[in-house]
Amino acid sequence: MTNKLRAQDITFILVRPRYPGNIGATARILKNMGFSKLSLVLPSVLPTHPECFRLAVGAADLLKKAKVFDSIEEATKGLRFLVGTSRRTGKHRQDFVNLPDIQAKLPRKQKIGILFGAEERGMTNRELSHCHLVTMIPSNPDFPSLNLAQSVALIAYQLRLVLLSKEKIPEKKPLPLASMEQIEGMYQHLEKMLIKIKFLPSDNSFHMMRTLRGLLGRTGMTEREVRIIRGICRQVLYNVV
Amino acid sequence: MTNKLRAQDITFILVRPRYPGNIGATARILKNMGFSKLSLVLPSVLPTHPECFRLAVGAADLLKKAKVFDSIEEATKGLRFLVGTSRRTGKHRQDFVNLPDIQAKLPRKQKIGILFGAEERGMTNRELSHCHLVTMIPSNPDFPSLNLAQSVALIAYQLRLVLLSKEKIPEKKPLPLASMEQIEGMYQHLEKMLIKIKFLPSDNSFHMMRTLRGLLGRTGMTEREVRIIRGICRQVLYNVV
Repeated sequence: MTNKLRAQDITFILVRPRYPGNIGATARILKNMGFSKLSLVLPSVLPTHPECFRLAVGAADLLKKAKVFDSIEEATKGLRFLVGTSRRTGKHRQDFVNLPDIQAKLPRKQKIGILFGAEERGMTNRELSHCHLVTMIPSNPDFPSLNLAQSVALIAYQLRLVLLSKEKIPEKKPLPLASMEQIEGMYQHLEKMLIKIKFLPSDNSFHMMRTLRGLLGRTGMTEREVRIIRGICRQVLYNVV
Repeated sequence: MTNKLRAQDITFILVRPRYPGNIGATARILKNMGFSKLSLVLPSVLPTHPECFRLAVGAADLLKKAKVFDSIEEATKGLRFLVGTSRRTGKHRQDFVNLPDIQAKLPRKQKIGILFGAEERGMTNRELSHCHLVTMIPSNPDFPSLNLAQSVALIAYQLRLVLLSKEKIPEKKPLPLASMEQIEGMYQHLEKMLIKIKFLPSDNSFHMMRTLRGLLGRTGMTEREVRIIRGICRQVLYNVV
């Protein structure tokens, strides 16, 4: 049994979103980040509005099953932990958690709601009073006000990192690196060629070869790349009189 | 003397952005995250288009000073390290770095460019071949394609966390990395030489050159190393009849 945060435990809740484009863009980025639950409290339009679909691109399914409510109380029924989002740090506020530090603050195996206030206005103190914690995006203090769908993007991304945190991220199959002998053979071939074209003096090649070893050595060359370099050497030697 | 990443060292470059709204939303989120340098390669509209301004809200200053270029080569002149963004993991690619792990991979005290491909299409292999590393957003494999401005948001956020990190990075004297023009000049010299020695056919050099770009590109070449490779090319061309 793992004790991981799961995407299906998290519902994103937009409170009084005003622009249909933001609802659509929210659906898209939520699906991009592996989430599927979207609720709207008193939205300006229904989530099936054409402008929402236009911005959602391939995330129309999230819009179709998005739930619409008349109040935060209704939207959060059944949830056990609410996270508010705000950039303001007035009094009478819960503890603020810097977004990158949110992982340690979230309960596991609980239904969690993430609340976003309306464009321009953000969340009111009353709305924030429902929340167990308030997270803050560490934005530029001189220009802190993010577009709604961009706020959703950053929070969904940070939560995705939490979801993936203990997970093995599928690794790319490593390329077959050349063996040390293959690389050594390549250096000797290269040195022979460089002496032949008189780029190196035959009796004093050490210093420059060390530089070239430094350059190629730090790349972690593959077998194919070694063959290519040797092919170039061979072709030069063949062509030089 | 700290060796921290600085916001002014980073330029965000949108390659062929198609929707003015994405240009405006990019300016806004960059300013939200404390960045100020935006370049556009062959955008569909100028950054001063009204629809860009509408989405930028308070970030009109970034749009007004955004630079517009006709090619990636021009846009990256003077930069020393290029980061590509891609969700594809085909062969013939540079090392992929998972976005949350990017901190350790970025050089300090160097001008860095972050490249974003066009909407829908992303970056081409040829565009990615300019990059020293390619970063990947760990998105849902079943629905990985993000809106352009949302991709910018996540990468700018992760880079902001790097800027704000308190971690002491051991100060290493940075190597004088070669500029993008110097590296491009070297590739052209190398290609010319390889065609001359008939290692490459003159009409079909792209595939092999991409491999060589991948090999040398991942090293972060110094100016001296570029001079050495060009010296070898010159000497081969001089010697081949």
